[in-house]
Amino acid sequence: EKFKVAILTVSDTVASGAGPDRSGPRAVSVVDSSSEKLGGASVVATSVVPDEVDRIKDILQKWSDLDKVDLIITLGGTGFTPRDVTPEATKAVIEKEAPGLLFVMLQESLKLTPFAMLSRAAAGIRGSTLIINMPGNPNAVAECMEALLPSLKHALKQIKGDKREKHPRHV
Amino acid sequence: EKFKVAILTVSDTVASGAGPDRSGPRAVSVVDSSSEKLGGASVVATSVVPDEVDRIKDILQKWSDLDKVDLIITLGGTGFTPRDVTPEATKAVIEKEAPGLLFVMLQESLKLTPFAMLSRAAAGIRGSTLIINMPGNPNAVAECMEALLPSLKHALKQIKGDKREKHPRHV
Amino acid sequence: EKFKVAILTVSDTVASGAGPDRSGPRAVSVVDSSSEKLGGASVVATSVVPDEVDRIKDILQKWSDLDKVDLIITLGGTGFTPRDVTPEATKAVIEKEAPGLLFVMLQESLKLTPFAMLSRAAAGIRGSTLIINMPGNPNAVAECMEALLPSLKHALKQIKGDKREKHPRHV
Ligand code: NA
Repeated sequence: EKFKVAILTVSDTVASGAGPDRSGPRAVSVVDSSSEKLGGASVVATSVVPDEVDRIKDILQKWSDLDKVDLIITLGGTGFTPRDVTPEATKAVIEKEAPGLLFVMLQESLKLTPFAMLSRAAAGIRGSTLIINMPGNPNAVAECMEALLPSLKHALKQIKGDKREKHPRHV
Repeated sequence: EKFKVAILTVSDTVASGAGPDRSGPRAVSVVDSSSEKLGGASVVATSVVPDEVDRIKDILQKWSDLDKVDLIITLGGTGFTPRDVTPEATKAVIEKEAPGLLFVMLQESLKLTPFAMLSRAAAGIRGSTLIINMPGNPNAVAECMEALLPSLKHALKQIKGDKREKHPRHV
Repeated sequence: EKFKVAILTVSDTVASGAGPDRSGPRAVSVVDSSSEKLGGASVVATSVVPDEVDRIKDILQKWSDLDKVDLIITLGGTGFTPRDVTPEATKAVIEKEAPGLLFVMLQESLKLTPFAMLSRAAAGIRGSTLIINMPGNPNAVAECMEALLPSLKHALKQIKGDKREKHPRHV
């Protein structure tokens, strides 16, 4: 089994060419090095969009509905500044919320820094795609992935409808 | 004082007769053995429905609005598979969310297994009925009930409008 | 830099004159004594309203949209009684949710009392105003403020659009 992952950097600065994308490449390498634990995941697409709800929604919908990506990780736009709208765009496209994933990301991030409380990240399912917001900080993606890794493979299998994964605790 | 509890098993397998209901009877016995700590709670109804939003909503509304049940515990349908829709049905009928209950259930469950992060459980109030989603795993109901027990009696008293319960910390 | 804070006591009892406001003055003194850590915050308005959605919404909107207050702290109306509607009023006016703030308030409060799970507090951003629900218990505001203090100044700076505050971890 093989899971398709897409990485979306959300940043006005990067999208306008005014600065380099530090988070996107880091996320690709985190996914690559976690590939086995994720059941054979690989990054099939990356993109950069500015902090605009419609631009974020459009690519989330394309990757979910047309490209049938299994997992989308967004980077950035989860804070408190006026331009931070990634969670709002995400909540507008997901059909089911995944609050347990947010819980563990917050719980683990708060052990590293109190600023983690400023994350407004959302997570949820659209069709057969899991969408997870992570902060734009280049270290955050590794920290969040580490928090999710123990169950992320099971999450992706469940979304694909694998019945054996329904009660992974018993497996 | 006496609280009426109803237990809803949400499962295609059980509803179709293809498998036994392992969680429902377990939940009944957990409520029975917690009855005193719950202020004299007893199970007045149990039912099984398939993983279908309308079927779940219908019985939640009947138990809340007609039967005036104090507490409804749902079992199952909280995961990531395409058929898991219990949280969506629940959120469609509750009038007030109860995020603190979800927090303690997640916090305690995660101490037992990382798969707890896959719970998408919802909880909230409709009229004078508290509705709480628990996972379908037969052990989960005991674990979740244990997490909630220290405050669940106060929650049920508050919902009935007991003013003395408004600041239970001071009682 | 100076942040304007407003304190809203939500209580039928206090609003009707049937009892004193124990939480409001306590909140004012907590903000005053945290002023430096909050980047120079001071209370510019206080008010008392009954537990009614429209009354709560009206003053939240006035303080946000007309008075351009930076931080509104509401006290009370977050529990399970039929009159507790502060979170519903708050969710009706905020444009962005701030779940990380709720997480730390719950996490820290639960260390002090299991009754903290009965808080249904909401938090979020409207325009350039941060709105945070806290319980009506006079001790709760100090406990919640302590949980938030390590990051609250950064939150308020981010809301004002301070780009240097975007990744406070790197500052
Ligand atoms: Na929520």
